[in-house]
Amino acid sequence: MNSKAIGIFDSGVGGLTVLKEVKRQLPRENIVYLGDNARVPYGSKSKEKIKAISVENSEFLSKFEVKLIVVACNTASAVALDHLKSKFHIPIIGVIEAGAKAALKATRNKKIGVIGTKQTINSQTHMNLIKAIDPEIEVFTKATPLFAQIVEEDMTDFESTKMLIEESLSYFKENKVDTLILGCTHYPLLKKQIKEFLGDVTLIDPSKETSLEIRRVLARKNNKNLSHNEYDKIFVTDTPLSFLEISRRFMNSDTLVVEQISLEEQRKESDVNSEKNKEISKIRKLIEQEV
Amino acid sequence: MNSKAIGIFDSGVGGLTVLKEVKRQLPRENIVYLGDNARVPYGSKSKEKIKAISVENSEFLSKFEVKLIVVACNTASAVALDHLKSKFHIPIIGVIEAGAKAALKATRNKKIGVIGTKQTINSQTHMNLIKAIDPEIEVFTKATPLFAQIVEEDMTDFESTKMLIEESLSYFKENKVDTLILGCTHYPLLKKQIKEFLGDVTLIDPSKETSLEIRRVLARKNNKNLSHNEYDKIFVTDTPLSFLEISRRFMNSDTLVVEQISLEEQRKESDVNSEKNKEISKIRKLIEQEV
Repeated sequence: MNSKAIGIFDSGVGGLTVLKEVKRQLPRENIVYLGDNARVPYGSKSKEKIKAISVENSEFLSKFEVKLIVVACNTASAVALDHLKSKFHIPIIGVIEAGAKAALKATRNKKIGVIGTKQTINSQTHMNLIKAIDPEIEVFTKATPLFAQIVEEDMTDFESTKMLIEESLSYFKENKVDTLILGCTHYPLLKKQIKEFLGDVTLIDPSKETSLEIRRVLARKNNKNLSHNEYDKIFVTDTPLSFLEISRRFMNSDTLVVEQISLEEQRKESDVNSEKNKEISKIRKLIEQEV
Repeated sequence: MNSKAIGIFDSGVGGLTVLKEVKRQLPRENIVYLGDNARVPYGSKSKEKIKAISVENSEFLSKFEVKLIVVACNTASAVALDHLKSKFHIPIIGVIEAGAKAALKATRNKKIGVIGTKQTINSQTHMNLIKAIDPEIEVFTKATPLFAQIVEEDMTDFESTKMLIEESLSYFKENKVDTLILGCTHYPLLKKQIKEFLGDVTLIDPSKETSLEIRRVLARKNNKNLSHNEYDKIFVTDTPLSFLEISRRFMNSDTLVVEQISLEEQRKESDVNSEKNKEISKIRKLIEQEV
């Protein structure tokens, strides 16, 4: 058994859907969550940027000696997961594989759709994972860039949102997909509206499957917390005001305690330390020569 | 006369509308433009973050010894202009004052509307500026958070965009404003669609008035470039790919040359230098004592 915390990061509030599910399935575990709201959204950033950001976030979580890191953001999972796995020596779990597996289980007609940010869709990570398991599956993908902001701005019930959903998702209707992966942690909050348009299509929310995967990994490594939950820590990188406001819609909870931290300070410290050490040894040598 | 460049920064491509107007009105001037696309959008960040970012951007432009800085972003102008003026000893020109003045000239019924990002609208900067000049003017303001992303995603002609414009701007119709300030540099690309809904309302694009203001300031200080344009430099903080793609819609030009830079490197250098100097003098003392 292992009472160290599970680390979770996301670009903002979206990953709270994963946090919520982990708490439901693994109520004894301690959790450290990082919502990087200073740099939201990730979906429009370059791959290089997303990788660098993901490493920084994981370094922050590592300070708490977490036993496992969950990349609760589809964009970062799609682009940076392998990079993180090569850098950190604890299990790193993303949300893409979970979504792909759940969709494979759910489809009956072998036509699966995927929606997500531009970076997630362009990466073709869902497509490749699904095809690797079952090459016969047809995969239809489409970026839906405004959806996340609509959730953040609480505009899910606008008539224009209804129309945008029709414009964006008719492609899946035309291609008769029977299963749609909600490839962004914000999208479950649009489930009702998407369902209304798509009708009898199974919507896959990867957070459930992700939590199952976490449970499996912890069990396999004998790493579950057998004691009780002692703490959950939630950190953000910009002011928590709008994070808290939006999080209510994700968590149905008014009691989140959130602390603001600066990853720039972390970066500064590490830059300064490495440069300082170099400089100190250089100066020592110089002065010793002088003397 | 002064051949040093004019510095312009924005969170991304939006400020290119200002660049374009400056080039039209002041064709001899050299320009250094910074599009901070690694940190776009500013509109949802906290005031503190926006101030810190604006200082960093201005420090970058200062490396080119610019003679004047244009904050070509309404959010940064609304939140950080005074802060920048206190830190940099060259003229700093924002886009808010220009928009407010142009609207004051245009209105006949003394009812002015303003749209912009949440931070721009919450700051009440337009409102305060307008009321300070003419307290009798009625000012109606509304945040329109999705508009900028719609422009970036090239979704201006979607039916859902038309409907969103109706939902968002009916407030101004009800209140009979005759003049609407487009308080975000992206919005001029939605002019046609906004006009279609609002009809006989004057739409104010602050980039024109901003360029007039730049011309006035340069003339007053005898700082115009009387020689010819020698260079325009455009820098971005993330990969230029989507910047270039979107910029075509802003500039109607296929020939932009864009260079990617890292403000983190700049920050690292300055952090490391200041810490290094402290450390060096400390070690010198220590070693001298030892010797």
